[in-house]
Amino acid sequence: MEFDKILYGTAYYYEYLPYDRLDKDIEMMKQANINVVRIGESTWSTYEKQDGQFDFTPLDTVLNAMYEADIDVIVGTPTYAIPTWLAKSYPDVMVQNNGKRVPYGSRQIFDITNPIFLKYAERIIRKMIQHIANHPAVIGYQVDNETKHYGTSSENVQRSFVQYIKQQYNGDLEKFNKDFGLDYWSNRINSWEDFPSMDGTINGSLKTEFERFQRQKVTEYLTWQVALVNQYRTENQFITHNFDFEWRDYSFGVQPDVNHFDAHKALDVVGGDIYHPSRKHLTGAEVSFAGDILRSLKQDNYLVMETQAQAFKQQVPYPGQLRQLAYSHIASGANMVEYWHWHSIHNSAETYWKGILSHDFKENPIYNEVSQTGAELEKLSPKLVNLKHHADVAFLVSNQSLTALEQFPFSDSRNYNDLFRALYDEFYKLNIRTDIQDEQHINLSKYKLIIVPALYSVSDEFLQRLNTYVKSGGHVMYTFKSGFADEHVKVRTTQQPGIINKAAGIHYELFVDPDGCQLIPDNKVIDENSDIAIKDWMELLIPDTAQVIAKYDDPNWKEYAAITQNKYGKGRVIYIGCFPSNDVLKQLITNMVQSLNLLVVKDTFPIIIKQAINNKQQKIDFVFNYSSEKIKTKTKFIGSELFSHSEVNGELILEPWSVQLISIN
Amino acid sequence: MEFDKILYGTAYYYEYLPYDRLDKDIEMMKQANINVVRIGESTWSTYEKQDGQFDFTPLDTVLNAMYEADIDVIVGTPTYAIPTWLAKSYPDVMVQNNGKRVPYGSRQIFDITNPIFLKYAERIIRKMIQHIANHPAVIGYQVDNETKHYGTSSENVQRSFVQYIKQQYNGDLEKFNKDFGLDYWSNRINSWEDFPSMDGTINGSLKTEFERFQRQKVTEYLTWQVALVNQYRTENQFITHNFDFEWRDYSFGVQPDVNHFDAHKALDVVGGDIYHPSRKHLTGAEVSFAGDILRSLKQDNYLVMETQAQAFKQQVPYPGQLRQLAYSHIASGANMVEYWHWHSIHNSAETYWKGILSHDFKENPIYNEVSQTGAELEKLSPKLVNLKHHADVAFLVSNQSLTALEQFPFSDSRNYNDLFRALYDEFYKLNIRTDIQDEQHINLSKYKLIIVPALYSVSDEFLQRLNTYVKSGGHVMYTFKSGFADEHVKVRTTQQPGIINKAAGIHYELFVDPDGCQLIPDNKVIDENSDIAIKDWMELLIPDTAQVIAKYDDPNWKEYAAITQNKYGKGRVIYIGCFPSNDVLKQLITNMVQSLNLLVVKDTFPIIIKQAINNKQQKIDFVFNYSSEKIKTKTKFIGSELFSHSEVNGELILEPWSVQLISIN
Amino acid sequence: MEFDKILYGTAYYYEYLPYDRLDKDIEMMKQANINVVRIGESTWSTYEKQDGQFDFTPLDTVLNAMYEADIDVIVGTPTYAIPTWLAKSYPDVMVQNNGKRVPYGSRQIFDITNPIFLKYAERIIRKMIQHIANHPAVIGYQVDNETKHYGTSSENVQRSFVQYIKQQYNGDLEKFNKDFGLDYWSNRINSWEDFPSMDGTINGSLKTEFERFQRQKVTEYLTWQVALVNQYRTENQFITHNFDFEWRDYSFGVQPDVNHFDAHKALDVVGGDIYHPSRKHLTGAEVSFAGDILRSLKQDNYLVMETQAQAFKQQVPYPGQLRQLAYSHIASGANMVEYWHWHSIHNSAETYWKGILSHDFKENPIYNEVSQTGAELEKLSPKLVNLKHHADVAFLVSNQSLTALEQFPFSDSRNYNDLFRALYDEFYKLNIRTDIQDEQHINLSKYKLIIVPALYSVSDEFLQRLNTYVKSGGHVMYTFKSGFADEHVKVRTTQQPGIINKAAGIHYELFVDPDGCQLIPDNKVIDENSDIAIKDWMELLIPDTAQVIAKYDDPNWKEYAAITQNKYGKGRVIYIGCFPSNDVLKQLITNMVQSLNLLVVKDTFPIIIKQAINNKQQKIDFVFNYSSEKIKTKTKFIGSELFSHSEVNGELILEPWSVQLISIN
Repeated sequence: MEFDKILYGTAYYYEYLPYDRLDKDIEMMKQANINVVRIGESTWSTYEKQDGQFDFTPLDTVLNAMYEADIDVIVGTPTYAIPTWLAKSYPDVMVQNNGKRVPYGSRQIFDITNPIFLKYAERIIRKMIQHIANHPAVIGYQVDNETKHYGTSSENVQRSFVQYIKQQYNGDLEKFNKDFGLDYWSNRINSWEDFPSMDGTINGSLKTEFERFQRQKVTEYLTWQVALVNQYRTENQFITHNFDFEWRDYSFGVQPDVNHFDAHKALDVVGGDIYHPSRKHLTGAEVSFAGDILRSLKQDNYLVMETQAQAFKQQVPYPGQLRQLAYSHIASGANMVEYWHWHSIHNSAETYWKGILSHDFKENPIYNEVSQTGAELEKLSPKLVNLKHHADVAFLVSNQSLTALEQFPFSDSRNYNDLFRALYDEFYKLNIRTDIQDEQHINLSKYKLIIVPALYSVSDEFLQRLNTYVKSGGHVMYTFKSGFADEHVKVRTTQQPGIINKAAGIHYELFVDPDGCQLIPDNKVIDENSDIAIKDWMELLIPDTAQVIAKYDDPNWKEYAAITQNKYGKGRVIYIGCFPSNDVLKQLITNMVQSLNLLVVKDTFPIIIKQAINNKQQKIDFVFNYSSEKIKTKTKFIGSELFSHSEVNGELILEPWSVQLISIN
Repeated sequence: MEFDKILYGTAYYYEYLPYDRLDKDIEMMKQANINVVRIGESTWSTYEKQDGQFDFTPLDTVLNAMYEADIDVIVGTPTYAIPTWLAKSYPDVMVQNNGKRVPYGSRQIFDITNPIFLKYAERIIRKMIQHIANHPAVIGYQVDNETKHYGTSSENVQRSFVQYIKQQYNGDLEKFNKDFGLDYWSNRINSWEDFPSMDGTINGSLKTEFERFQRQKVTEYLTWQVALVNQYRTENQFITHNFDFEWRDYSFGVQPDVNHFDAHKALDVVGGDIYHPSRKHLTGAEVSFAGDILRSLKQDNYLVMETQAQAFKQQVPYPGQLRQLAYSHIASGANMVEYWHWHSIHNSAETYWKGILSHDFKENPIYNEVSQTGAELEKLSPKLVNLKHHADVAFLVSNQSLTALEQFPFSDSRNYNDLFRALYDEFYKLNIRTDIQDEQHINLSKYKLIIVPALYSVSDEFLQRLNTYVKSGGHVMYTFKSGFADEHVKVRTTQQPGIINKAAGIHYELFVDPDGCQLIPDNKVIDENSDIAIKDWMELLIPDTAQVIAKYDDPNWKEYAAITQNKYGKGRVIYIGCFPSNDVLKQLITNMVQSLNLLVVKDTFPIIIKQAINNKQQKIDFVFNYSSEKIKTKTKFIGSELFSHSEVNGELILEPWSVQLISIN
Repeated sequence: MEFDKILYGTAYYYEYLPYDRLDKDIEMMKQANINVVRIGESTWSTYEKQDGQFDFTPLDTVLNAMYEADIDVIVGTPTYAIPTWLAKSYPDVMVQNNGKRVPYGSRQIFDITNPIFLKYAERIIRKMIQHIANHPAVIGYQVDNETKHYGTSSENVQRSFVQYIKQQYNGDLEKFNKDFGLDYWSNRINSWEDFPSMDGTINGSLKTEFERFQRQKVTEYLTWQVALVNQYRTENQFITHNFDFEWRDYSFGVQPDVNHFDAHKALDVVGGDIYHPSRKHLTGAEVSFAGDILRSLKQDNYLVMETQAQAFKQQVPYPGQLRQLAYSHIASGANMVEYWHWHSIHNSAETYWKGILSHDFKENPIYNEVSQTGAELEKLSPKLVNLKHHADVAFLVSNQSLTALEQFPFSDSRNYNDLFRALYDEFYKLNIRTDIQDEQHINLSKYKLIIVPALYSVSDEFLQRLNTYVKSGGHVMYTFKSGFADEHVKVRTTQQPGIINKAAGIHYELFVDPDGCQLIPDNKVIDENSDIAIKDWMELLIPDTAQVIAKYDDPNWKEYAAITQNKYGKGRVIYIGCFPSNDVLKQLITNMVQSLNLLVVKDTFPIIIKQAINNKQQKIDFVFNYSSEKIKTKTKFIGSELFSHSEVNGELILEPWSVQLISIN
């Protein structure tokens, strides 16, 4: 959907304030050109203090004050943390993991499938949305927050999983046992009544299917909330959600517990939170990959529902970074940048996850930089809203393969997302824009190049589609472990890599641990001075029609290939049979994109360039310096810099941690 | 209370002997000049073999034999381990942690609040003390042993915690919710009945309060035992307890699970156990800090109820160390040094926690050194008993802040006690005597200098008292995180550091992780060749009236101060906004104590000097060499060395791991 | 028992096949000269799909096909994994650990003492064995698989443990309390009803006894299965079991959870699985030590029921290794080498534990090497079957000491088996054959030298037997911690090392942690350029009559010995009071075996030589090169090489990872 301005704002928790200072807060927001707040999530116990006693006064107070100040409001349904009285009255609403109910306290530890929880959640959502839907301050809704399945495995979940399998198999137990290999260790299920709890299962196929089912519960839960809100919202209000990503103290990769590619469908606009390393560790790659996922879901602009202001002691930004990051989000397609959160919290778990304001509520360097950015955005908004992007390259990611590889890991210390990021970050650093899609939704023909990290568990049919895509002129870069197992995580009985070996022009019988092995570049694609270390996995490739790019240096296995390329029909496939260094990945990618003419700029990280087209069909170039060094660079772009209004003509001087916006002539 | 001699002894477990050798043991004790034993703890199941069947024969046997041998006896109430029959009949007496009863086996895993436990404990205590109170061998009692709350969180504890809060708040739920910030994540308690179990709480204020409440249970339990024993003991018998310290394979710091500053009140004399590294790792610092705490509780002498003989394989002392350590305890104010324990145990958990005797009960190097020390003490006791000390410096420590900083840690690898010890050890090494008190009991005006590590959670009123203390001429050294939160662990909404910023003459808005930052000394207090590394925490200080001692070397934050000093009224404050190296701490401390004229000797570690005044008002100097090198040192003291009777006049030669006692002329 | 040929085969799981390819599999097996398969284990749910519904069709199919192909079959009872319906109907059959039932899923997590489990297990065993006993393909049975006690500690186990103690003590509680030191921490048991669950015990004596009792349950369970099978099997069918070893991703040492020395008695022939590191980490030591244990049990040949083909990515063998390993097993006394397993599994837990065939069922380098080896064995079998061996050296190992040292560890990072292997591997590398026995079964007089690692918990009587053995001319090498505790893990009250100090001619009072101490060689036994580091443990030995081999370099303990030797009667004892380097162990061992004339070959690792006598009384020498270097070596053997038929006369050229078999003239 189109927005009429860049939304610049913050989560605001009136309920958490140690004293009432709403007016002062709004005054400081206005001064900072903040034009939107998100309110309402996790406040159920404030609005419904006891079962059935509703009081939305605090909500009204904030809405009225914001409206008067001309600040838009996104209202969150309050369900991601439940009241004490609900947990006390109905202990079963707490999520059960491995046969144990989790004790009340934290957020996001209830059972999203529990009928009592759902009954109470429905009532508070209806009451609350009905109450505020017609308030003129409200521009949209966020249903729940960072919803996941929380590992729910209660008896009712277990039962409904059995129904799900039963339906999928039309009751054909024999086929189910076969597909999932349940004979192994006597795990056969010879009667639906015998279906054991998934708590103890050692069957990776079943566990992966159960997690797929659990992700489906998230989609259903969000869809249900959207349907509820839909009954009350007005026409010009939107509904979004705050998706998040694999968390490693920041947003790291594809979310294992939610299928974003399904779950976004009920929403009007996609939202998500994006956290990242800061200070000398800031590269902007997280803003980019997470933005690419959020944008790709609907092939449209998205909202950054949360990103860090000060956050933790490790993450307080250097001067310049916070401003730079706001433009980085917009450059990736965000129509909103919303900080988490306005004021630092004075009690409980997130006291040290600091907001724009410190605990003293005073102006500070972070607030000042927000204000500077807010003032700029106020001016530039018309040129930056609803930016459109084009990508010739797509990443094919897969919740299913990610989950299956948790069952059958290729490494002690790295997972699917490490591989995804190793590949992604090289594209990012080369300034090549990418879309990110999953195997259920990708439109292969849109792209010139598809990057496929470890597509481990997938149907025959999709692999055949990939072969066809190459045959018709497409290009694919596969890594090790692609094509190995079918959609039930049953290993294929055909030559590996399953099905795609045809297009890749190789096969393999053995795979081993590198244990010190290195690459021998066998071809000019990889420079002989490269970092030839490999890690985690090493397939002993036998080229059928493929050309060898690199071999292994183990004299016992010197006849095997490590990396190959193969022409197939009108297209070409690179197959990477091991986990090489970033250096080698970069060379493989550079080689591929050069041959496809996809390298549009010569600059690379720490200079990051994002190009977009705005509402008025102007080309806007975002040029970032992600380093603490001042950089001078030649540029091919000719245009006008939007902050300074200076003309750009062949040369740019980039201050440390800075950004320039060039409107291309 | 005054003692008439130095007690030198050992814990003695007649019950654990593999065969009866009481007479032989006593013969060996006499030969070693051991004059006291502690007996009776953890022997409940021996004296009450079945419910209500009492037999104190073994106790009588030992008491009679000791009396005949003129060895004093301290009798422990036997409650710190419970009989099998009690746990079997009443499973609820076992402590419950996180909803799970701990299975029977170890000591100290019962519920000290359980009425059935208390009923049975009362009966055995009454029966036992009544039985032996008039025995002439008995000089005193130890109630229980190393008591803690063992994390008790049963339903009854939970209920009584709710009552405790209710009372504290006069039932004012609204104020309670506000003070503890319970709106956060919908944790509000809108009716006392809804109060959730503390097992799952994520509210650091509530968790800290619950631990304060748990510590209070320990105080109540000990007070209750003292009251019971009081009903039987004779007038000249004392009651003590064996306190211990944060345990890291030895006594490391302030005990988190007991409030020593409250719990000692019911006792006549303070006792504690002190364990320490040995061999090349021995510094004596643990003997000193633990002694300072025990002595400060009643500002009086204390008893070392337990300290190591051989202990574990890591701790077997070098020749000389055991003797040196005995005098080290006395130099700190101990009137008793009691080893744990007489004979090494032949079965069960502490088989390798060896005693004076090895498992073969034969004389050995440890026993021989005990004998040497015993013979010396026999002679010197009149000069060494009831030693008095004076301290101009006090450490202000805080159970409340320690606990709160477990909820909101400043480091992944260090806690409150690491900071306390980093500071304490530098005073120790500079030979400056210190008292150690908490915020509820300290008499500020007694001291010239107060050292305040991370006083994180404390009332406004106490911080104001600290300001007043400085204004009137006192000196304070604060570290980072002081004054941050109030007594409910609610972060102050005023400028940080809360309230004390006035006397410190600085404030800060931001704090960050050092992540490689170092100090830039900005002033002659810190030498430019110092170890400028910092760790864990870094407040970006803005001097208001303070003088900068050091800044940070990050060019992005070069305008901020790291360490400052400020004159305020007649006094002075040093504020340390980060965790610097020991080297820098030493220089800050040296500078401060020199300016206050508190450096009484020029020697520093490994020469440790402790000065005291004895009963006869003689000045006694203890001079230790805590190293394996022979050291020659000039001294300003003139007097007579008590072991050798040689005159000391300007020079001392100290053998490795040795001690000299100088009676000052 | 004698076999008529070398069995060369594989585990075969018809039930796990993704599609029926029995005929193709058999064709490939025949082509590879595979002559035996093991089938049937872990397939209960396939043969009894619902309670009481038996269908052995798949079993019949395989047996018939194998018979037709002239491939022998060993049938496993199917009990090591249980059907879903059994666990669903009777949740109590699942094993309980620490009060918690383990959820269904994995194999080997049921309660082997549970009467319901036993009732159902008996029925399936009877039905299955009865069904196939007369099938001509069946040559033998494997009862269960890698059976252990799985930590079973249900109420019934607890009760029967109390009965076991009661019986052992004839009801004498007082003596029991004394022997186990239960007075400690009030753990006394004053009435059998009070006996607490072993879940929480902190009494190392009791815990060790409980584990001995648990191991006894394994022996009883296997004996019970053998008795059942015995009722059906024909005369020429044997019964075996698949023992395994302490597992550290491969077979590492003595199995803590099973007493092999008792459990093998009901079997006709011993079987076991042997897994080992591979590639550059392969030394053959695991094949040797595990083979020595299996062979020593009945002083007879044994069967390798499982060893790796491809296994995990870390373990895929280099070319040559798989073949070399087959001969290595035979050289140690194996009459069967059976791979785990035929085809890699397509689903569930062991998908990446790969078999001879990869998932594509095609020929591959591993299969090809199996085929080569199979063809050779087909020819050489008559010369290699039933090989006999002679050992003058025995290792004395002890389940009891191993378990007791888990309760009282001598190290943070190493256990009993690390010490055993440190010693064993030096003998292996010196090409000295050893037997391995336990203290209940060893015939001391058979051996010239007994190696005794840490015989921690053992009866007085056995230690006296060891003294007598030395007195009569035997030689013993003891390590630290030998003789310390009696058979109830009660530390001896006599001088240490208990009883054996007489023959060792030393005693000690103190033991300490090395903490950086090193050895000072004091005698020509150890070279002065040796690796003098020591680890974990250091007894301060006082020589009584012994000669010092090494002292410690700590100046505080310079008078004590570290390693000593002592003549006692006609024999000699080396006592090693610390854990020295492999280098020092090698020198101590070399010195000892040279003096006893036990060094038969001069070659050492990586050349491994195993000598044996075959059925026809021919001497066969196996010469291995366990390295990737080609090696030329002089040899004293004159004979004929069996693969090449070339004459060997004074010189051998050994290819990397190869073996030669010399029939000695």
